[in-house]
Amino acid sequence: MTLIAIEWDDAAGDDGRGACRLLDQTLLPGRTTFRDIRSTDDLVTAIAELAVRGAPALGVAGAMGVVVAMDEGARSGWDEAQVQQAVDRVRHARPTAVNLAWGVDQVRPLMEQGRDAVLAAAREVARDDEAANRELSRLGADWLLERLDRPRLRVLTHCNTGSLATSAWGTALGVIRELHARDRIELVYADETRPLLQGSRLTALELASDGIPHVVQADGAAASTILRGLVDFAVVGADRIAANGDAANKIGTLGVALACADAGIPFMVAAPWSTVDLSMADGSGIEIEERSGDEVTVLNGTRLAPVDSSGFNPAFDVTPARLVDAVATERGVAEPRRGTDLTSLGR
Amino acid sequence: MTLIAIEWDDAAGDDGRGACRLLDQTLLPGRTTFRDIRSTDDLVTAIAELAVRGAPALGVAGAMGVVVAMDEGARSGWDEAQVQQAVDRVRHARPTAVNLAWGVDQVRPLMEQGRDAVLAAAREVARDDEAANRELSRLGADWLLERLDRPRLRVLTHCNTGSLATSAWGTALGVIRELHARDRIELVYADETRPLLQGSRLTALELASDGIPHVVQADGAAASTILRGLVDFAVVGADRIAANGDAANKIGTLGVALACADAGIPFMVAAPWSTVDLSMADGSGIEIEERSGDEVTVLNGTRLAPVDSSGFNPAFDVTPARLVDAVATERGVAEPRRGTDLTSLGR
Repeated sequence: MTLIAIEWDDAAGDDGRGACRLLDQTLLPGRTTFRDIRSTDDLVTAIAELAVRGAPALGVAGAMGVVVAMDEGARSGWDEAQVQQAVDRVRHARPTAVNLAWGVDQVRPLMEQGRDAVLAAAREVARDDEAANRELSRLGADWLLERLDRPRLRVLTHCNTGSLATSAWGTALGVIRELHARDRIELVYADETRPLLQGSRLTALELASDGIPHVVQADGAAASTILRGLVDFAVVGADRIAANGDAANKIGTLGVALACADAGIPFMVAAPWSTVDLSMADGSGIEIEERSGDEVTVLNGTRLAPVDSSGFNPAFDVTPARLVDAVATERGVAEPRRGTDLTSLGR
Repeated sequence: MTLIAIEWDDAAGDDGRGACRLLDQTLLPGRTTFRDIRSTDDLVTAIAELAVRGAPALGVAGAMGVVVAMDEGARSGWDEAQVQQAVDRVRHARPTAVNLAWGVDQVRPLMEQGRDAVLAAAREVARDDEAANRELSRLGADWLLERLDRPRLRVLTHCNTGSLATSAWGTALGVIRELHARDRIELVYADETRPLLQGSRLTALELASDGIPHVVQADGAAASTILRGLVDFAVVGADRIAANGDAANKIGTLGVALACADAGIPFMVAAPWSTVDLSMADGSGIEIEERSGDEVTVLNGTRLAPVDSSGFNPAFDVTPARLVDAVATERGVAEPRRGTDLTSLGR
């Protein structure tokens, strides 16, 4: 089973324009349902609710969002300014992942050529993402196997970075898939990734689907699992990587990196070049989305904490370059900790 | 509201012996119910299910468990060997917290003097625990205030260490209460403490009850909250502390300690002397309880992970002495990181 997180379905709807079809990831693994997105409001809501999430998938959502805005404008009689406003709303639906804005910007210059040209370009964004993921996975796996001589490797990952987080294949989970294809994976420790449990719900689903041996653990177990010597390396995705290698990723990533540094095992960030933001010298300027505290204090409608207690819910953290051994991209592997930053891979 | 985790209720039952009354912590904060324990089976089950938990409270449970076994033996016509077997079952109901066995051993020598002598001694264990908690809280607060000159402090804690985890007052939460009584607390970051959410369910309940400002965060947020400079120190409890200062505590503690060391802020362990196990030179011999993986993959009856995915659920981790700035006990404050280990506080 390969679940496609986002694609354009020409057959959807009844006006020949189709719709942006999103797999609703809020309901996985219990239910597999899709949302056909034909309005900017619905897309912004889907992004905010994390029905579609994962930095590379958000890049595709940004690109296809331009088509959604153009089609909605055509249906609703919007003028050019209104369409552009709608595009901007998509572009800013979430702040941390650079890929969302990047995806919009990839296709926006084509708007004057018409929606079919924009749609073709958006589909190319998705195709390019898959190709980038496969290449960075190959390069990342090579880098790891040059440094780790255990026959089969035990790896820890955090959050979801597989086909559900991308157009296809995956980034950090792509590296794991590549290693599994080479018969070099012994066991994957998947952090459950509170509060929204992307690891438990989504990563475990993808690993089970691929038949890759894995266990799910509480995020708090990561440091202990690593320091006990149960793990050979950790690999995670990213939502934005600054020029020096500082990397924003799902909250909890920083703790994994600290433990890897303490244990002396490699900590790798795997992400397509579209996640790299060379306009930022370091991570200090990365805006960290703070989401509703209810995501921490309420689960599946059940309140976990007392009603008088508020949740604090930063969605991302920034791992400093000094803790990042490798950033695997389709352009090559940078080694920020050793002083080889992202600028070494050029523009 | 002060919730008493464990006490002997002379009025319970109808044979004049009473019962060990446990607040059922598995149902908090939603429901406040009690279990009257009159059999060894029920006590072992309650300990295994964490209806009563927290190292110092387990010490009291161990001591009162001897009375439960003696009373059950009297009711059921057990011989001496059967009563001793029942006591041993209580003593080994959970492996990691040294206090459970310690509590049994405190009163066991009095068995030949009769159950009333044992009950009196068990009640003294509880009273001594509260006195120890108040003293270690005072000493811990003094130690912190000598080193931190901010008017009001921002503190991070993990799991629950308040009156629900002890006979009364608390250990790490006791230090926080003491600082709050001195008007020196600005904000408490309470890690939710997956998988069983003792932080979200219990610590937040105690903090809300005392009117201490607090927020609940995912365990994965701890490292980021600390490295962003939002926290002045962290304080946690312990289930067993080796002579050199290696400290076993709820899974997730180690990650907090790593972040504190990286940020250069104090990491304090607060525990009564009954938690110190000088028979262990270091933490390498501490048995780590591995609980059912279902605690990770299922919550409130709802499966979080795919059915094909197993949970990995170590209940504790061991923080090495090199990361522990202070161990506050009622005998004084040891500084393992600076080379002053627990033996300095004598027997």
